[in-house]
Amino acid sequence: MLVARRERTIEWGDCDPAKIVYNPRFFDWFDNCTGGLLEAAGFAKRWLLENTDFTGIPLVESRARFLKPSRYGDRVVIETQATDIRRSSFDIRHQLFNGGELSVEAFETRVWTGRDPKNPDRLKSAAIPDEIVARLKGEKTPG
Amino acid sequence: MLVARRERTIEWGDCDPAKIVYNPRFFDWFDNCTGGLLEAAGFAKRWLLENTDFTGIPLVESRARFLKPSRYGDRVVIETQATDIRRSSFDIRHQLFNGGELSVEAFETRVWTGRDPKNPDRLKSAAIPDEIVARLKGEKTPG
Amino acid sequence: MLVARRERTIEWGDCDPAKIVYNPRFFDWFDNCTGGLLEAAGFAKRWLLENTDFTGIPLVESRARFLKPSRYGDRVVIETQATDIRRSSFDIRHQLFNGGELSVEAFETRVWTGRDPKNPDRLKSAAIPDEIVARLKGEKTPG
Amino acid sequence: MLVARRERTIEWGDCDPAKIVYNPRFFDWFDNCTGGLLEAAGFAKRWLLENTDFTGIPLVESRARFLKPSRYGDRVVIETQATDIRRSSFDIRHQLFNGGELSVEAFETRVWTGRDPKNPDRLKSAAIPDEIVARLKGEKTPG
Repeated sequence: MLVARRERTIEWGDCDPAKIVYNPRFFDWFDNCTGGLLEAAGFAKRWLLENTDFTGIPLVESRARFLKPSRYGDRVVIETQATDIRRSSFDIRHQLFNGGELSVEAFETRVWTGRDPKNPDRLKSAAIPDEIVARLKGEKTPG
Repeated sequence: MLVARRERTIEWGDCDPAKIVYNPRFFDWFDNCTGGLLEAAGFAKRWLLENTDFTGIPLVESRARFLKPSRYGDRVVIETQATDIRRSSFDIRHQLFNGGELSVEAFETRVWTGRDPKNPDRLKSAAIPDEIVARLKGEKTPG
Repeated sequence: MLVARRERTIEWGDCDPAKIVYNPRFFDWFDNCTGGLLEAAGFAKRWLLENTDFTGIPLVESRARFLKPSRYGDRVVIETQATDIRRSSFDIRHQLFNGGELSVEAFETRVWTGRDPKNPDRLKSAAIPDEIVARLKGEKTPG
Repeated sequence: MLVARRERTIEWGDCDPAKIVYNPRFFDWFDNCTGGLLEAAGFAKRWLLENTDFTGIPLVESRARFLKPSRYGDRVVIETQATDIRRSSFDIRHQLFNGGELSVEAFETRVWTGRDPKNPDRLKSAAIPDEIVARLKGEKTPG
């Protein structure tokens, strides 16, 4: 599977009065990382939105384990990859490492959605394009 | 078990370009609701912080199912209760209802922490006070 | 002028390691309050979006004074009103009171935007409907 | 004056239903950038917190102009520098460039705070250390 990797420094405003990362921030970063995985596969969400019927990949399920707290100023690395890809949904795993140690591990199930021709404001599940599946699987590389 | 209940309207800034709630926002609200549950039990986190060795209840595990999207202007209700209480950790369930329908269901495991006398900046698990356990279980009511 | 009023409790996750509200949170609440002002005027942004050409009221200028910090558990009141209304832009003032004392005061200039017929994804300034102007001014009441 | 520079890509979750950056996000980034300026000056806030009486640099005033909207996928650059440094407060300017064009310009006044010996939970203004002033002014370089 293709692995996308992001680094970031924990910022002051990411932390709560206990001086550790406020947990919803992790979910914000993981959402960004899922976007980053598509981009690493050669299909930025923005390009998909502007050029195809794609409307997004809403989260349908998530699960996370918080193993060690992260603090202001820590440098962390997040590795993201698909772990299972089905017709119109897929599973993603994020591993956040802090000082080389696995500190948060999260799993997401997301559904690929396109425009509903009957109601353009509604989201409708759609088949994930073969090209994207092949790239997420690492069977093909972008470019 | 004691059930804490909160209502809120989905705000513009809670939503993403797909016009549905951006998922980390739910985790923000659920974190608030967990604080609200302690408060409903008669022990606001602020009071605990100022008057006891309590330092917080960091999340160690979470799980969520996103059943139906919520949109700008929707009025939602979140019901929060403990589902299992152990010596120094406990499980919480949040159910978010939108128009009466269960739309998000989330489960958290949190650990009760106190000051580590050897290092005041570190968190250390501690026994949940009996009085709080009794109130979360609904065996005693505040006041 | 019509005054919209909101109350909220400062939540744990609103605060940073200095144990005071992390300043971007205020801007989030003020944005919500601006939406609340339109709603108090009888024109919820959601209704405007679904029934008119309205696309939003993007911020073009803001100014804020942070007079006293707010802390976890504080109960605050925000009062919001228009202070000047022009053809397609208007000024808003938010006053956040904590324990009865003015703690944050913010001023916004926003522009009323509609769909650009040449490019539906772009925003274009538009005249604020007379009915809304009259209600923001308190010259007419909803209903 | 020393200029700190950060780049970032606008993420999906940074944007609202109008498909432009939700304005409080800018204030989050600017707060991060102010921390980055201190770090560029050789004094990371974390180091200051752990090794000196420093408790933070709360915002006392801010002002921003939003000249052009930024959208999902845009690559932006933020340049941050002090514009005036007084005994215990200082002014900061952030300029956010999108595609080379100035898109947001923000000004902050912040106060340097230290521990109040009478009440460790309260913040008290303190003189900005000479060494830091010299570095923010670009009169001395770190290391």
